[in-house]
Amino acid sequence: MRTVFWDYERDVMKMIDQRLLPFELVVPEYETVEAVAAAIGDMVVRGAPAIGAAAGFGMALSARQSRAADRLALLRDLEAAGQTLEAARPTAVNLAWGVRRLLRVAADEELETVEEVREALLAAAQRLADEDVALNRRMGFHGAELIGDGDTVLHHCNTGALATVDWGTALGVIFAAHEQGKRLHVLVDETRPRLQGARLTAWELQQRGIPFDLIADNAAGHFMRAGQVNLVLVGSDRTAANGDVANKIGTYQLGVLARENGVPFYPVVPTSTIDLDLATGDLIPIEERDMDEVLRVGGQAIAPAGITARNPAFDVTPHRYVTGIVTEAGIVYPPFVQHLRAAVARARAIDWSEKGESTDYTDGTD
Amino acid sequence: MRTVFWDYERDVMKMIDQRLLPFELVVPEYETVEAVAAAIGDMVVRGAPAIGAAAGFGMALSARQSRAADRLALLRDLEAAGQTLEAARPTAVNLAWGVRRLLRVAADEELETVEEVREALLAAAQRLADEDVALNRRMGFHGAELIGDGDTVLHHCNTGALATVDWGTALGVIFAAHEQGKRLHVLVDETRPRLQGARLTAWELQQRGIPFDLIADNAAGHFMRAGQVNLVLVGSDRTAANGDVANKIGTYQLGVLARENGVPFYPVVPTSTIDLDLATGDLIPIEERDMDEVLRVGGQAIAPAGITARNPAFDVTPHRYVTGIVTEAGIVYPPFVQHLRAAVARARAIDWSEKGESTDYTDGTD
Repeated sequence: MRTVFWDYERDVMKMIDQRLLPFELVVPEYETVEAVAAAIGDMVVRGAPAIGAAAGFGMALSARQSRAADRLALLRDLEAAGQTLEAARPTAVNLAWGVRRLLRVAADEELETVEEVREALLAAAQRLADEDVALNRRMGFHGAELIGDGDTVLHHCNTGALATVDWGTALGVIFAAHEQGKRLHVLVDETRPRLQGARLTAWELQQRGIPFDLIADNAAGHFMRAGQVNLVLVGSDRTAANGDVANKIGTYQLGVLARENGVPFYPVVPTSTIDLDLATGDLIPIEERDMDEVLRVGGQAIAPAGITARNPAFDVTPHRYVTGIVTEAGIVYPPFVQHLRAAVARARAIDWSEKGESTDYTDGTD
Repeated sequence: MRTVFWDYERDVMKMIDQRLLPFELVVPEYETVEAVAAAIGDMVVRGAPAIGAAAGFGMALSARQSRAADRLALLRDLEAAGQTLEAARPTAVNLAWGVRRLLRVAADEELETVEEVREALLAAAQRLADEDVALNRRMGFHGAELIGDGDTVLHHCNTGALATVDWGTALGVIFAAHEQGKRLHVLVDETRPRLQGARLTAWELQQRGIPFDLIADNAAGHFMRAGQVNLVLVGSDRTAANGDVANKIGTYQLGVLARENGVPFYPVVPTSTIDLDLATGDLIPIEERDMDEVLRVGGQAIAPAGITARNPAFDVTPHRYVTGIVTEAGIVYPPFVQHLRAAVARARAIDWSEKGESTDYTDGTD
């Protein structure tokens, strides 16, 4: 089962409710774009690529939901739906990326009827989802060369199948190295406040039989200083043109600690999260979420009643802490300004549709 | 009420059970040294100075519990009790410090009878506890000069009244600045895995009406990089002769992040935690505690069943990250090897008994 998908039998969109994992596997159906936007805001679905795919299917849903009588009225409804989706999470660039991609499809003047637009949008959303799986496989292939036999990899948040449509970004690199027969060990940051590491990454690694230990986020630096970490892999919700990386809160700390201890630090980044129009990461708006995420764990209060908390969901890791960036078009090294632009161009030139439904791109041809 | 104390009416030792705070205030009685050692191991009481005081009263308890017929037999029982106490937590130097201090009192040859030793030990344990309060006040006085009006101070773990007999070390500095009328704001690291920040520090700050926000440990670096932190204050469980500091897991990360962002980083350290015989912090044994502390929060699982975790309770912050060390004998700056030795000598020359029961040492005479 994919994290975000269209159920063609029931003709409805479905998403795994990640808030309930690893204790319950519930897969609700979505029938309106408003419900999809709310689910993105509430983090039923999270992870930049998964959010991008949800935006794609959300747009397809909106086309079906619209009562527009003609193509132009439908396009107006789709514009509004896109705005609803984009407002759900301010930091993730993939939301806007998914929305805009679907709007471009809808704007194709060869589509004449409302029904034709609807069909084209669902097909486009499905293609976006399929491509995500294919390019994750490709990132896994490229990134796996960073992992040596016997290495310990430190990993933050969740960047696996659950953060994407399937397979994963940073965790996909770990899966790829494991698939290649490399022995490896993962130190899993629990990733407060929402514990995506403890709940989701631990679950995915357990399912695949990859050895790991969960750690408190506070212990990451200690293990790096003790020489017990060979590589740090993280995801990215938005990457600036200069290689600054906005990712889950705590990523910046890992970048600083990695450089301080001579540990290579690589974000694993589909080019869809690279925003070439954004000069530096300090221009990225940082979402601050409900303080209850800090004050409670699993519904249970962990602090005295009546206090306040600050809850930034992301931080920015300046590129000087970034050893390299793994993309589906290869690993990018500094100077990032030139090399990221080239990687985005290379990635756009790859015709993913030729790769069809297969997800095995471990042959490595660019 | 103090964190650790002798109830003279009931003639029994008492300690606040800090595992239940801030939700319940329970103060169990202790009648055997074994029960005290178990309580230290289970973290009913924690914080280096509080553990030192618990060791003192534990030794007094052991003298009452002993059935020794003569002084020499009692000394043998006390030696065994000391070993039981010292084994409870491997990293904290105050355990051994408290035990040895009481053993020196017991060895005084002017004490002739078993009953005289018992009385002397209880008096010595009480003196140790009273001195802790007095020297915390003194540290607060010295440290408060580091805090400017309007500053935001980032604080890790709990170092307040609950970590000591009363008042506190790093948090005591914050209390002192607040008492002086300085407006300040505290960012409180929740301090996983045991959440001493969320449970205990938040509670103490709330009780005193000092403004603060709780944050996930992952957010500390973000706020430093955003220029929102003026000072980092932490405690120390054991300080090496060169200024390396062993403290709650996560402290090392704060030290690195503080230096990287030009934020002053000061451990607040009673000289009882300074081990001049220890050349560097890397010789300090790091206690690794039960993995359930990581896998559960408040008894509730946060991760899939059947997985493993690593749980180092402390880390070592090398002295190169330490701006200065606040002690009861003044603030110590590099080179620490010379200046810590001098501070310990100055502290030993202070006759705390002259200060009697009063805890008001904000006059600042050294």
